[in-house]
Amino acid sequence: MKLWQSSVNDSDPVQRAVESFTVGDDWLIDRRLTPWDCAGSMAHAMMLHSIGVLSAADLAAARQGLGEILALAREGKFEISLADEDCHTAIENYLSTHHGEVGKKIHTARSRNDQSLTALKLFLKDATLRTQLHTLTLADALLAFARKHPVPFPGYTHMQKGMPSTVQLWAASFAESLLDTRRLLTACVDFVDASPLGSAAGYGVTIPINRELTAELLGFARVHRNVITTQNGRGKNEAVVLSALATLMAELSKLGADLLFFSQRELGYLTLPERFCTGSSIMPQKRNPDVLELLRAKAKVVGSLHAQVLSIITDLPSGYNRDFQLTKAPAFQALDITEASLTILSALVPELRVDSSKCQAALEPELFAADIANELVVTGKSFRDAYREVKSSLGSLAVDDPRQFIDRKIHTGAPGNPGLDHVQEELAKHRSETAQRLATFEGTLGRLFHPAVSS
Amino acid sequence: MKLWQSSVNDSDPVQRAVESFTVGDDWLIDRRLTPWDCAGSMAHAMMLHSIGVLSAADLAAARQGLGEILALAREGKFEISLADEDCHTAIENYLSTHHGEVGKKIHTARSRNDQSLTALKLFLKDATLRTQLHTLTLADALLAFARKHPVPFPGYTHMQKGMPSTVQLWAASFAESLLDTRRLLTACVDFVDASPLGSAAGYGVTIPINRELTAELLGFARVHRNVITTQNGRGKNEAVVLSALATLMAELSKLGADLLFFSQRELGYLTLPERFCTGSSIMPQKRNPDVLELLRAKAKVVGSLHAQVLSIITDLPSGYNRDFQLTKAPAFQALDITEASLTILSALVPELRVDSSKCQAALEPELFAADIANELVVTGKSFRDAYREVKSSLGSLAVDDPRQFIDRKIHTGAPGNPGLDHVQEELAKHRSETAQRLATFEGTLGRLFHPAVSS
Amino acid sequence: MKLWQSSVNDSDPVQRAVESFTVGDDWLIDRRLTPWDCAGSMAHAMMLHSIGVLSAADLAAARQGLGEILALAREGKFEISLADEDCHTAIENYLSTHHGEVGKKIHTARSRNDQSLTALKLFLKDATLRTQLHTLTLADALLAFARKHPVPFPGYTHMQKGMPSTVQLWAASFAESLLDTRRLLTACVDFVDASPLGSAAGYGVTIPINRELTAELLGFARVHRNVITTQNGRGKNEAVVLSALATLMAELSKLGADLLFFSQRELGYLTLPERFCTGSSIMPQKRNPDVLELLRAKAKVVGSLHAQVLSIITDLPSGYNRDFQLTKAPAFQALDITEASLTILSALVPELRVDSSKCQAALEPELFAADIANELVVTGKSFRDAYREVKSSLGSLAVDDPRQFIDRKIHTGAPGNPGLDHVQEELAKHRSETAQRLATFEGTLGRLFHPAVSS
Amino acid sequence: MKLWQSSVNDSDPVQRAVESFTVGDDWLIDRRLTPWDCAGSMAHAMMLHSIGVLSAADLAAARQGLGEILALAREGKFEISLADEDCHTAIENYLSTHHGEVGKKIHTARSRNDQSLTALKLFLKDATLRTQLHTLTLADALLAFARKHPVPFPGYTHMQKGMPSTVQLWAASFAESLLDTRRLLTACVDFVDASPLGSAAGYGVTIPINRELTAELLGFARVHRNVITTQNGRGKNEAVVLSALATLMAELSKLGADLLFFSQRELGYLTLPERFCTGSSIMPQKRNPDVLELLRAKAKVVGSLHAQVLSIITDLPSGYNRDFQLTKAPAFQALDITEASLTILSALVPELRVDSSKCQAALEPELFAADIANELVVTGKSFRDAYREVKSSLGSLAVDDPRQFIDRKIHTGAPGNPGLDHVQEELAKHRSETAQRLATFEGTLGRLFHPAVSS
Repeated sequence: MKLWQSSVNDSDPVQRAVESFTVGDDWLIDRRLTPWDCAGSMAHAMMLHSIGVLSAADLAAARQGLGEILALAREGKFEISLADEDCHTAIENYLSTHHGEVGKKIHTARSRNDQSLTALKLFLKDATLRTQLHTLTLADALLAFARKHPVPFPGYTHMQKGMPSTVQLWAASFAESLLDTRRLLTACVDFVDASPLGSAAGYGVTIPINRELTAELLGFARVHRNVITTQNGRGKNEAVVLSALATLMAELSKLGADLLFFSQRELGYLTLPERFCTGSSIMPQKRNPDVLELLRAKAKVVGSLHAQVLSIITDLPSGYNRDFQLTKAPAFQALDITEASLTILSALVPELRVDSSKCQAALEPELFAADIANELVVTGKSFRDAYREVKSSLGSLAVDDPRQFIDRKIHTGAPGNPGLDHVQEELAKHRSETAQRLATFEGTLGRLFHPAVSS
Repeated sequence: MKLWQSSVNDSDPVQRAVESFTVGDDWLIDRRLTPWDCAGSMAHAMMLHSIGVLSAADLAAARQGLGEILALAREGKFEISLADEDCHTAIENYLSTHHGEVGKKIHTARSRNDQSLTALKLFLKDATLRTQLHTLTLADALLAFARKHPVPFPGYTHMQKGMPSTVQLWAASFAESLLDTRRLLTACVDFVDASPLGSAAGYGVTIPINRELTAELLGFARVHRNVITTQNGRGKNEAVVLSALATLMAELSKLGADLLFFSQRELGYLTLPERFCTGSSIMPQKRNPDVLELLRAKAKVVGSLHAQVLSIITDLPSGYNRDFQLTKAPAFQALDITEASLTILSALVPELRVDSSKCQAALEPELFAADIANELVVTGKSFRDAYREVKSSLGSLAVDDPRQFIDRKIHTGAPGNPGLDHVQEELAKHRSETAQRLATFEGTLGRLFHPAVSS
Repeated sequence: MKLWQSSVNDSDPVQRAVESFTVGDDWLIDRRLTPWDCAGSMAHAMMLHSIGVLSAADLAAARQGLGEILALAREGKFEISLADEDCHTAIENYLSTHHGEVGKKIHTARSRNDQSLTALKLFLKDATLRTQLHTLTLADALLAFARKHPVPFPGYTHMQKGMPSTVQLWAASFAESLLDTRRLLTACVDFVDASPLGSAAGYGVTIPINRELTAELLGFARVHRNVITTQNGRGKNEAVVLSALATLMAELSKLGADLLFFSQRELGYLTLPERFCTGSSIMPQKRNPDVLELLRAKAKVVGSLHAQVLSIITDLPSGYNRDFQLTKAPAFQALDITEASLTILSALVPELRVDSSKCQAALEPELFAADIANELVVTGKSFRDAYREVKSSLGSLAVDDPRQFIDRKIHTGAPGNPGLDHVQEELAKHRSETAQRLATFEGTLGRLFHPAVSS
Repeated sequence: MKLWQSSVNDSDPVQRAVESFTVGDDWLIDRRLTPWDCAGSMAHAMMLHSIGVLSAADLAAARQGLGEILALAREGKFEISLADEDCHTAIENYLSTHHGEVGKKIHTARSRNDQSLTALKLFLKDATLRTQLHTLTLADALLAFARKHPVPFPGYTHMQKGMPSTVQLWAASFAESLLDTRRLLTACVDFVDASPLGSAAGYGVTIPINRELTAELLGFARVHRNVITTQNGRGKNEAVVLSALATLMAELSKLGADLLFFSQRELGYLTLPERFCTGSSIMPQKRNPDVLELLRAKAKVVGSLHAQVLSIITDLPSGYNRDFQLTKAPAFQALDITEASLTILSALVPELRVDSSKCQAALEPELFAADIANELVVTGKSFRDAYREVKSSLGSLAVDDPRQFIDRKIHTGAPGNPGLDHVQEELAKHRSETAQRLATFEGTLGRLFHPAVSS
């Protein structure tokens, strides 16, 4: 039975259709939020105790009951039925059934609105921090690969060979780019990291709750103050996280596009590890790069999930609207896709093989035309005159050793000076910061259920 | 004539069609980038002088010529023809025509790729900082409006009256929310604020250029190091800025939705200022809220412009691809829409009239049901029992003075404690920081053309 | 074991990750396609028999085995495991295990590509025809509602009262509009209704298969001829169906927006049936229109699913690419949402209550200004002069009976002549055509498993 | 001065900002609609004359004035100022200024709503019919190219060589596919082809106008009956046309992707004509396929324009809302992009060169593995056994003449039987139908201004 119902007529097919239309698969999706609601509910109970609404016995019962739910949820055994509608109702129902009065009291001074928003924001903070770690892991893999392969090969523009480059520079470019993108993820975490608990249904409560206390207990960086602002964060939090994920996936799709391109048999600079490929049901010789094709499609899926959430929240008036129910699933789906994509690429990159001879053979003399034109400039020609001169003698260019040009490109970020150590330092620093932030967060939440003896 | 052409056959209709298809209206769009390319080119010239590629005379000629272009551009008189293709070619052609050798030398050790990317990033940094200021201006207007209207009126959920709120809390909620969103804009500026100059066509140059120097001269916070990463920033910078703008516009659309709703004649809490309304060609009594309707549509336009750019860059391989040409116009369009929307709302908000008597009349006793239920809790009832009790006596609720409930909602962010001073301090702090950052940026660029006597 | 594998190493975590990344939940999604693949496989078997590849015994075994699978699938008991990858492999494995040689022979002269495309197109044709029927059912409900409520009430533009209208005209407008939209659905069915079977992997087979025969057996209107065109239909079919669904859902969202608006308590023209509303966990007086809010959000979801599929297929080269795997789920999801939305609205509309007195009271004299201006025209004034005259005397307009104006609007489609009979005839005609087309299709497929004694 | 204004205060900066925000560049965009509004206005005038509202002299003045506007518009000399707001006001103002009373009378019994919708639908019908013709022209070019190049080359799946195919089959596949897509365009024309004129502001008029007459005079296939349905067509018409254009552009992007792929120097099957390529400012040897890269990006732009319009109309209540102003420009932009894309591809395709020797060399024996496996089936092996046998001996396959396999693939649509004549017949039939429909439409509109002597 839902919280707001006085009676249910289960035999009414319209009522069942309405239930199916409104609840949808929320009761399934919500399983992921159960542990986070346990944390949010526990902090709320502790605050209610601090202001005298819950007795010490109530608080102990809440901690016991929520601990049980947490344990059940971890084993996949905490049941949320379609009739419960969501995990929040299921949790309250469990407490009422198994732990008496506290189940009826715990909803004091809160609403399902701030309750579910709290669970969602805790989840998003955790998931985004983990995505950061996965991003850094892929960057590490790319950097390690770069160190192993200082092999010259063509740099492309317009999907045409343009100038000499190195496999190293190429791989390191994604490591550095992921460091950039990580900034966006950090901005998301900072955006999300404000406590909604206590905003109730968006208009506050007459009970003098202590929002600073619950924020602190839950490890939030600050209180999301204005209660309407807080409720209007519904969907916006998901949109903000999704926009960073969409950018990140677009970047992974570029890595995938390069891998598809460089591993085409006609180019052959790279070979994909066999266990990342699939076969054909009728063409026995095929080794298909399905992982990369799906990566490409999945990047587009995440992009459209962002657009979906953004479109759902655009033009909604202030206050809770049921539309927000549909902004959770896209966020979950996008976080899952992104994690899986980062993970599979982190496993794939170290197994890529580089065919040095194909790389070398592809460096036709023409590719050095711009370099040679620039050389003429050093001898005093204007660039435009040098350019025309080289262009007219393209056929007769000869280059003995491609490394001679690469080794002379030594300005910051050039193939002869890709700055791997610099990137590595940055990676280590960000990894340490992110891991620390996550550990602190986990520690704070852990103390909700296991308060230290001394405190 | 384009930089890469040796001859042009103007009478070939296919060539003209290709030109029209490829150049499109880029030559028009690029007018906006002209001043920024002048800055980028000037910094490049100063660096080339510092490494001995340009003579002192060349440098003086460059400063003279670029200064002339800048002056012409400010008056809208710098011509870019379809045949020039873009502002970068037009600038180089101008220098070559009017200032001799330096025109042919200035392209040494750079490519149109890093040249145009530099101009674009300078532009995006400037425009995003200005958008921040406009955002803070609207927040100021909302906060001032909030201070003037501590009037109780209904808080809605599901577009249905839910609980007592105040006009003040509502208006302040958008001020606080814009402060949140401003975080995203700052993250964009930080993302964009890395110098691409010197990355050339994405594979570096053999000339030992000084990328740190040009970055410093242009006021960039850092060098975008790996030259491939830098080039792969094409489109990504625009996508990142657009994602923040899309979130911001979604938020403005919520403000617009509330204004449309609250100013419906059937509700009448707010009245839109007449000069922001339009009439009907056949219904003389109409006062139509066209500004708000267009705001709603424009928020969706900006959302789709983000999706457009994201979709253009997804799945492109590394290195420059001509697709990037189409990522500029959406960014320009979205920045223009966002600025216009912030500006018009900043003008509209102070002129909104509040009808206190309609606000008061709308506060039916039922709206206090949840508050009364919570009161019963304080007297010892469990919330669930109190809820059922109140629900069964909805008809007989009576509330003398709505302020009595509002004044007792005093926890952080509640109607009785909306924290206006806190928001105001934050606003002032962010305004000062942003204005300072913009002033420093402008000062740095200004010194390119007017180096201090002492330096 | 997948069709293309020679061995599987289940203990390899990377292989499991790759499997999870590539197969995803396709094996779950594919349950829906099982019956349609049974039909496609049966037609293929009959054709192979007709050209001598399968013996009569093989054919009987195939019919027996596929019939068993069909029966299992109907009871939800046909198992597709993650290791099977999809229903196509599971079906072939079942035949091989339980019906000997025919399992190994049935894949002759086909590929999983044309096999799965056949199942998908049969499914899409069926589902789109059913969506048409649901669309017509909603139109019927709207028309019946229109007949019952010839009540005058305000017509709005810009969400402001504009001119007199009737509830009847409003309801009938959606019936007529759904008839328009039904054209798009029919165009989808016609687009999809071309047989892909026999295109194999997109490059044909050396065995002289009879594609016209399988097309006829499966009830397709024609053969999709060029085998590359056929394979390139992957995703395109889904995109075409989704574009019609997106348009349809946008239309339903307009109906929902009107219902939300007209049933706002402040307007009160319509009352939503209580069993389509939900309550609040802390505001006992609330009756929330969650169904309509979710309808609004779901329309946006379907729009973004179309964009998702379109974006997945854009820029893919010819021939099968694994990206196509991800175009199925959005189509299934959108078809489900659309059917549920049509169904719930068809149940809701007949239960809407109309508050005639609120409708009447809302017709303030001003709303007749344009009508009165037009009246003056008939007496010889120019419209512009009449308009200005009426505008200057808005306050003194008086209208005794709103019907007097409505009854004089008798041109085609006006409130006094809404043409309900015309719409009803069209509805009946389209219903009959669609039902007939569906029945023929089902009959044809039914005969695959139960060939007539005489044939 | 706008139609609904009594006075304008030009010195008010807010009023100018509002004007700029609301009118935007509509007054520029609307230039395209001017001729179509002249036609709509002329038909309306003829109908008003037929029911006695306009005198014969009025009618003659209207025909004279609208004819003048039409002539001016054709020369680009009909001025629409920002203050006019749109072409509809400019036209009425011109008539009032230059042709006396008829200018004030012509707006009788209509609204700007049905006036502008009429112009837009006439435009969309014309533009969509022209897009059909351009689509058929490209299909013709592809078919002619196919006839000239029956050259065997590899068929790809997963961007990997899969099986033998022919350049002919590949080119013809796009011709056949464009015939499919043309169905969607026809459905759009049929959808749009209903007259909105006479729906006024969406609630009809008391004057007994003859909507059937204006529909006939304007060449519409039918009257869009219910006046609310008609107005609710705003944006929906554009969305429907855009959805077909998006599908068409996705298809052109596939052609572009294939061209990019097959013309990569590393594959070299096709060579792009030089005048469709561009060069590099610093890499003199480059021949960049910019046209195809932009085609790829433009396909995504059109996809997002569809999403933009769909998102603007989703969730709008019935009746005119100003949001609709923003649905025109995306339709114009998408129609322009699509026409330009079709045109440039139609010019490019005939100039493609095929490198037969590279095509031949690419047909490695492995590609015949599936064909050989199928051969074994004909000799009695089960397909699965044959597949495993061939797979185990991939290295030793030898194929003397690839045509031997292709020539034996003779079922419908296979490389040996691509059905070019069938496609050609279809093309001719559709070209004739479309050209006829367009000619009839133009003839009907022409008669508005040049009624036959005898009538």
